[in-house]
Amino acid sequence: MTHPSAPVDPAFALRVLTGDRPTGQLHIGHLLGTLENRVRLQEDGLDVFVLIADYQTITDRDSPASLAADVEELVADYLAVGIDPGRSTIFAHSLLPELNQLMLPFLSLVTLPELLRNPTVKDEAATAGMETLNGLMLTYPVHQAADILFCRGTLVPVGADQLPHIEQTRVIARRFNRRYAPDRPVFPEPEPLLSGAPMLLGTDGHKMSKSRGNSIAIAASADQTARLLRSARTDSDPHITYDPVNRPEVSNLVLLAALCEGVAPLLVAEQIGGGGAVALKRRVTEAVNERLRPIRERRVELAGDRAYLRSVVREGSNRARAIAQQTLADVAHAMHCGY
Amino acid sequence: MTHPSAPVDPAFALRVLTGDRPTGQLHIGHLLGTLENRVRLQEDGLDVFVLIADYQTITDRDSPASLAADVEELVADYLAVGIDPGRSTIFAHSLLPELNQLMLPFLSLVTLPELLRNPTVKDEAATAGMETLNGLMLTYPVHQAADILFCRGTLVPVGADQLPHIEQTRVIARRFNRRYAPDRPVFPEPEPLLSGAPMLLGTDGHKMSKSRGNSIAIAASADQTARLLRSARTDSDPHITYDPVNRPEVSNLVLLAALCEGVAPLLVAEQIGGGGAVALKRRVTEAVNERLRPIRERRVELAGDRAYLRSVVREGSNRARAIAQQTLADVAHAMHCGY
Repeated sequence: MTHPSAPVDPAFALRVLTGDRPTGQLHIGHLLGTLENRVRLQEDGLDVFVLIADYQTITDRDSPASLAADVEELVADYLAVGIDPGRSTIFAHSLLPELNQLMLPFLSLVTLPELLRNPTVKDEAATAGMETLNGLMLTYPVHQAADILFCRGTLVPVGADQLPHIEQTRVIARRFNRRYAPDRPVFPEPEPLLSGAPMLLGTDGHKMSKSRGNSIAIAASADQTARLLRSARTDSDPHITYDPVNRPEVSNLVLLAALCEGVAPLLVAEQIGGGGAVALKRRVTEAVNERLRPIRERRVELAGDRAYLRSVVREGSNRARAIAQQTLADVAHAMHCGY
Repeated sequence: MTHPSAPVDPAFALRVLTGDRPTGQLHIGHLLGTLENRVRLQEDGLDVFVLIADYQTITDRDSPASLAADVEELVADYLAVGIDPGRSTIFAHSLLPELNQLMLPFLSLVTLPELLRNPTVKDEAATAGMETLNGLMLTYPVHQAADILFCRGTLVPVGADQLPHIEQTRVIARRFNRRYAPDRPVFPEPEPLLSGAPMLLGTDGHKMSKSRGNSIAIAASADQTARLLRSARTDSDPHITYDPVNRPEVSNLVLLAALCEGVAPLLVAEQIGGGGAVALKRRVTEAVNERLRPIRERRVELAGDRAYLRSVVREGSNRARAIAQQTLADVAHAMHCGY
């Protein structure tokens, strides 16, 4: 069990809400950092909702002509790593109008200073190179609250940088319940589920990113993986050690091999020892390709059946929509909008 | 014809979008200022959409337990003054999830400085006694854009204070079309339809307001009307004149009588002359009660059939929702969200 015995509101069934923006192929960092964890939660019998945040691709960029294909690729990644659409619910933001209607009451429950204060919004706007915040970026934590609360999600796997968003969601749930439903809360206050996975860097030593070309895509071939790892940055000391502070690039490759093999990084470093960068790269290439081999085999098969991938999104979205409609009916009742 | 020959985009059919928040009974100021105009637009054969902005009652207050009854009262007012649900579409915000989904792309098209700069938002927040803006008040012009554009409204009857909102709607429509649909615009740029009706004050000489108790409700009885007008503020000069600048209270009563009788205020003042406040109040009471008599008779009948009033909202909302769904499908297509 990787989920905590957190003090989740006992009035609400456990439900995990997680997801991604469909802005490019998922990579080994996603697999080891979050995707494996989702599959574990699913295998533990939890009810997992996976949101494809297609509408939020426009927070900091235009909606690309490739969006539909990007969504299919994302679903292929999900299914290949083991997310089972029979047990987990994969759905797209744009197919749930009822989710977005929650924006209105939720916006009334947050103040402008609260929105302006959110550190993650500031960081994300800076990363996206925005000179001025747009309204969607500013209100992003409110959408995220709608994403989580529409299905009354109680557990949200996040990185530490997303904690302010979860706190905003908890505040919104609490304020809604107090104002409109003091006797019988409509929303749970979801708990963050902090990942214990160590942070992997890209092959250039910088943050792994879909757009930097420094990450090993799940969908890449074994040859592409080998080529990328051959070009990975190391240092001039031929004796391999695991020392993330002083030797970040080398240690990152050691860690990647260790995570793929399921052993300790110190052991990997010791085994390579004086073999130098060449032996290290050979080891990590084999570890990554071996780890990804069964996933990639499944993925090739899945990617050939676009109709099936689309049907997964549609069926999951129908299931999520029925839940959103029930939530919205409860919200309307609490707000006295019943006609 | 009271609508202008404004340069409305010829690619879009003429459609009027108008509406009210269900925050209390409509009064004589609404009748003479906007409701009569809506009926005229309807009689001129225009396609009139009347939004009951129930979700926006929470912009500056809690949703009251009386909301459903308030909506019924509003519909009774509409039908009594002559809005015909067979020709015009009366619908409620909360019944159109697809309308609210437009919020997301629209929020991405406005900047925080634009939102902060809107003078009407500042005024409305100050009027509501808000110390800090909440997110719903801040983004109010964006919702209003969704309210207008979901049905591709081309004409929006407004007071001068609402012009900044219409301009924001036009900017959003233009930016959406340029970014996502340069060849075949999805949205018209709606034109404001400025009312020529003179501003009526309340019986206390202040702005007429549902909440100040200084206005004659359409639903009030003839006796209640007479009582309220007997207590109306005048001045110490017994000779009645029409001089809005120097004698605002007296002139306001003269204007009210004149509007109800369909004659010039100067004529009314001349006819009363030395009769003083007593004669003025007798004249205006009779004029108002005579003007409202047929409306009030219809209203009593309508108010007795709550089931019918609700069915008007439901049927109008179903019609509006079908249009919202078509618009949202066009938006999804333009944004490449078609799966």
